[in-house]
Amino acid sequence: MRQTQTRVEASLASALPDAKLAPERLHDAMRYAALGGGKRVRALLLYAAGEVSDAALERLDIAAAALELVHAYSLVHDDLPCMDDDVLRRGKPTCHIQYDQATALLVGDSLHSLAFALMADFVLADDATRQLQMVATLAQAAGSRGMTGGQAIDLASVDKTLSLPELEFMHIHKTGALIRAAVRLGAMAGNPLSDDALKSLDQFAKWIGLAFQVIDDVLDAEGNTATLGKTAGKDAENNKPTYVSIMGVSGARDFAHDLQQRAVDALSALGGRGGRLRSIGRYIIERGY
Amino acid sequence: MRQTQTRVEASLASALPDAKLAPERLHDAMRYAALGGGKRVRALLLYAAGEVSDAALERLDIAAAALELVHAYSLVHDDLPCMDDDVLRRGKPTCHIQYDQATALLVGDSLHSLAFALMADFVLADDATRQLQMVATLAQAAGSRGMTGGQAIDLASVDKTLSLPELEFMHIHKTGALIRAAVRLGAMAGNPLSDDALKSLDQFAKWIGLAFQVIDDVLDAEGNTATLGKTAGKDAENNKPTYVSIMGVSGARDFAHDLQQRAVDALSALGGRGGRLRSIGRYIIERGY
Repeated sequence: MRQTQTRVEASLASALPDAKLAPERLHDAMRYAALGGGKRVRALLLYAAGEVSDAALERLDIAAAALELVHAYSLVHDDLPCMDDDVLRRGKPTCHIQYDQATALLVGDSLHSLAFALMADFVLADDATRQLQMVATLAQAAGSRGMTGGQAIDLASVDKTLSLPELEFMHIHKTGALIRAAVRLGAMAGNPLSDDALKSLDQFAKWIGLAFQVIDDVLDAEGNTATLGKTAGKDAENNKPTYVSIMGVSGARDFAHDLQQRAVDALSALGGRGGRLRSIGRYIIERGY
Repeated sequence: MRQTQTRVEASLASALPDAKLAPERLHDAMRYAALGGGKRVRALLLYAAGEVSDAALERLDIAAAALELVHAYSLVHDDLPCMDDDVLRRGKPTCHIQYDQATALLVGDSLHSLAFALMADFVLADDATRQLQMVATLAQAAGSRGMTGGQAIDLASVDKTLSLPELEFMHIHKTGALIRAAVRLGAMAGNPLSDDALKSLDQFAKWIGLAFQVIDDVLDAEGNTATLGKTAGKDAENNKPTYVSIMGVSGARDFAHDLQQRAVDALSALGGRGGRLRSIGRYIIERGY
């Protein structure tokens, strides 16, 4: 896992414009926001799914960088005062604190565009038509029927009581869409997989994405800011409905284990080829930050 | 021109998610921000360039909608309080005034992703490899080496005196990049053009894009808010360097005509095929808003 994290970091570093290129401050801030941090869970899942399709690592490097750029842009915008108004991210001041709000806005926008430049500029699939499907996969996952739609539902849910299905609907969009895209992109970058295999992978991604969010809620509730690298206790402070507010810490942990089991079960159709995905699933549940 | 504007409006209306789909408020706000307004100059240029390459109108509809989505997203973000802080756009309250800042931020992000979903979801070129080049063209034009880079330079130039070359450098990025992409996308959607023809079109786009900006500065300086549909006099109020602040209104008008002439000259290599582009060039100079 450490090795994969190093690969995606190097890929991001070479994809991002040099901070010496004009406009220097914007490029510096883009590198600040996208490099040097994060668990890279989405990238890990993408590489692991790429192993199932026997995809070339060089392709996965690019697709993983594009995906992490979309994730990084969403964090920069999410931390802005008009959204979650947070000052700490990955153990560092958030982008708008380190630079300024206007720069952070443009950093997010620039990382977002760069992701699609990467997806189109390199060869990522055996044929260009499939690569266009990969572009569409990322764009749809990022958009209003995916990630940004989930963020909008999240905003609207402050101070509200959500039912479990409503909370699930939000997270399937907010974090789930990009996690599913991660697995799908890895699967599409290599040899064509059967529809059954693709469906198994998608089921795995759906459950593990939800488990990821449940654990996020647990860590926010019980974690401490230094370990997390971001402000702990924000959900309760912002009066946001979470799995912990609905089922308590230990109920939420049990639920996450249940989801992990469903994810692992979905992989059984792949035979031995899902080993790496299984380990990352375990990591997602057992992580401390 | 009216006909083309109607076409792109219809294409945008069908590309944007229905406001009845969840999250409803976000989708409503996306339609508010992207529909019903604007001169659609970028779309007009794209269709006109598509005429040069004999591109199917159905392809141009999609590419023009994608391009206008990128433009619309940039306006929504540009109007936010941390950027230009404007309350009026296309004769209506800006998106963050009509909705709220967080929604406007997500609207911009969602329109941005949707543009790339469109570019990848439909057939836009004779072969998929060329279509990937079109995706890259749009992504690069929108990014930090294009539009958002220009916005960053613009922000940094407030209260500063810029030389003419510095001002030109800013505008070649801020508005010029997307206008060049418009012409390039239209050219790529049809039959392959010679390198010479592509170069002529790119030169045309470069000069007409700059002329567009010079006239924008003139209209901001002398226009009135009702005609413009956005707050006039903002540049002087924000102490931004403009062509008018450097060369005065009549000097700027002369300069715009000079640029238009350079643009028209660049088309001569195309023989009779650049007629529509020429008319739009004239419209860009003679428009009153």
